Amino acid sequence: MTTDPIKFHKELLGKLVVSSKIHLDEKTLPIAYTPGVGAVSKAIADDKKRVYDLTGKQNKVAIVTDGSAVLGLGNLGPEAALPVMEGKAAIFAQFAKVNAIPICLDTQDTEEIIKTVKIISPAFGGINLEDISAPRCFEIEKRLSEELDIPVFHDDQHGTAIVVLAGLINALKVVKKDKSVKIIISGAGAAGLAIANLLAAYGLSNYCLCDSKGVVSEDRNDLNGHKEHTISNSTASCPIGECGDSLVGADVLIGVSQPNQFSAKEISTMNQHAIVFALANPIPEIMPDEAKKGGAMVIATGRSDFPNQINNALVFPGLFRGLLDNNISKVTPEIKVAVAEALAAIITEPTKDNIIPSIFDKQIVETISNAIKKLK
Amino acid sequence: MTTDPIKFHKELLGKLVVSSKIHLDEKTLPIAYTPGVGAVSKAIADDKKRVYDLTGKQNKVAIVTDGSAVLGLGNLGPEAALPVMEGKAAIFAQFAKVNAIPICLDTQDTEEIIKTVKIISPAFGGINLEDISAPRCFEIEKRLSEELDIPVFHDDQHGTAIVVLAGLINALKVVKKDKSVKIIISGAGAAGLAIANLLAAYGLSNYCLCDSKGVVSEDRNDLNGHKEHTISNSTASCPIGECGDSLVGADVLIGVSQPNQFSAKEISTMNQHAIVFALANPIPEIMPDEAKKGGAMVIATGRSDFPNQINNALVFPGLFRGLLDNNISKVTPEIKVAVAEALAAIITEPTKDNIIPSIFDKQIVETISNAIKKLK
Repeated sequence: MTTDPIKFHKELLGKLVVSSKIHLDEKTLPIAYTPGVGAVSKAIADDKKRVYDLTGKQNKVAIVTDGSAVLGLGNLGPEAALPVMEGKAAIFAQFAKVNAIPICLDTQDTEEIIKTVKIISPAFGGINLEDISAPRCFEIEKRLSEELDIPVFHDDQHGTAIVVLAGLINALKVVKKDKSVKIIISGAGAAGLAIANLLAAYGLSNYCLCDSKGVVSEDRNDLNGHKEHTISNSTASCPIGECGDSLVGADVLIGVSQPNQFSAKEISTMNQHAIVFALANPIPEIMPDEAKKGGAMVIATGRSDFPNQINNALVFPGLFRGLLDNNISKVTPEIKVAVAEALAAIITEPTKDNIIPSIFDKQIVETISNAIKKLK
Repeated sequence: MTTDPIKFHKELLGKLVVSSKIHLDEKTLPIAYTPGVGAVSKAIADDKKRVYDLTGKQNKVAIVTDGSAVLGLGNLGPEAALPVMEGKAAIFAQFAKVNAIPICLDTQDTEEIIKTVKIISPAFGGINLEDISAPRCFEIEKRLSEELDIPVFHDDQHGTAIVVLAGLINALKVVKKDKSVKIIISGAGAAGLAIANLLAAYGLSNYCLCDSKGVVSEDRNDLNGHKEHTISNSTASCPIGECGDSLVGADVLIGVSQPNQFSAKEISTMNQHAIVFALANPIPEIMPDEAKKGGAMVIATGRSDFPNQINNALVFPGLFRGLLDNNISKVTPEIKVAVAEALAAIITEPTKDNIIPSIFDKQIVETISNAIKKLK
């Protein structure tokens, strides 16, 4: 097998296969298709809910993107987003047996996206929003969650937030600190805001956010409503200033911003036994060896070639497995916290190089799905 | 296996499975997904056409319906249409290895349907419109064919028309008649009009149409533009009257209308060696034994329990296989005629009970696909 991604994809010609669950022959075809299927259509027309027990709706998720924020690469458009969505659908298939379908939209208009997703929703049991840029992603997710009766989940926000919380729960055990820790979140886009909101929901409320202009402070007059709302839930004081300077006396740094943003020297101003999650991909905000040099005790990245990989793929397969199997139509903060706790609990004795399971750990999907079931 | 369609569907819980072509492990995942896939996204962003050789777009078809004309059952809505679309996708998968995705739309507004299909088109290599009622289906297909650069095919119109033409080519050989035959088409909806138009394109222009009000005559003042256009291509004289009366002296009756419309007595007024295609499903316009009683020589229905099953599934798998493999973006009349001729030619020596192959004949998909290739 080639390791060159272009060659790899050229040989595959698409990463997904759609196949029939039953072999169609003289006996099965007239039942699976016309004329037999007519009775099934009539049964659903008489009682729409039966679409859940007579079709694949209950196991089918649309992975919806507009290509405006493809990986960390920016606004590449819907065609360029397709190989990423196919990769995600392949993960859904292999890890959780969810039938996921890439839907790449030829519009970046918020209202058109909302309308399109609503119109195509009848055949789907859930919507995974993906790689849609902020702030449009907030409105799109909010409206679709309100207006559809199937679960809607923006993975770049909440998938990231859940894995970060899971890793942080274990990292705090390793460094033996409690929920009063001071946390700096660098990056106030989709991921950064969702992380802050989920940490607050869990009780980790002593946080400050940074964006490209420095600390997100109430004293600034250039904040959008999303940032204002997020810092309003913080118990920390976050004065105007450089993000690097805000690390002084902090216990945790969570970077979801850009490569090489921090130096070992800046990390060294943090409290003892600092936790550093440098999640920009593929180049982190600070490389693990530099963070270590600065005194960090627990270090995580988004990469598979360092310990503690914070990877969204740890969450979305099991999350949707649980939502679909339990007919849950809204992803509440309670569900997100429960999933993070369940994911963290897979590591029974966390160490500085083992705060989060590998995505190949076969317990994950069932553990997360069970955690969701328990909340019913 | 149960033969009860409801139980059958309840046990299956959906007829389709989406799976990953490659096993994802420590080596393949970073190539198929982030970070490796980033290079693939960038390559497509640089040259949009590369989406055809780096993703599954080239083998992915959306089966789009609004649920307004589900089988012969009427306007049952998008949820009730889903089991039919899944059946169709299962046929696509098994017979032609096309990845087909049911898309059931929660709107029956022509402009909203057109806009939605355009917006979701980037991830698809073709659009199969299905079970959308006339006359909206005409405008939707026309506009999408014009405005998209991928093939758009309304199967209820053209799939039916192609199979009917294929069957008729062989039936005419059996009865030893030429292209001058007088043809009555009963039913002037999506299928009836498409059949008439394709027969005209093939040179079978001596036809009259009937709708619910009788013969579609130029002398009527209640015709829509689609019907007017279709009869303008006919060389026959079609005076106002009952459809049954129009059979006098006709050679061919093609019924795509409603059960039990014609009697043996009416069939007996047709010319000797009459051809009767009674395609209403599951109950034909006249049962085969009655048509025989009336003197018909070659009889076809839409059913699998009589000889000569005229079934759309004979065409759409091979048609899309050919369109996708040869990067063809428009389904022209030339293509439709070539597919009908190729399908007919599979039966080398047609007899009255064998004018069309069984859909389980393994040559069909390749034969049709090759016929399309030859037109390039």
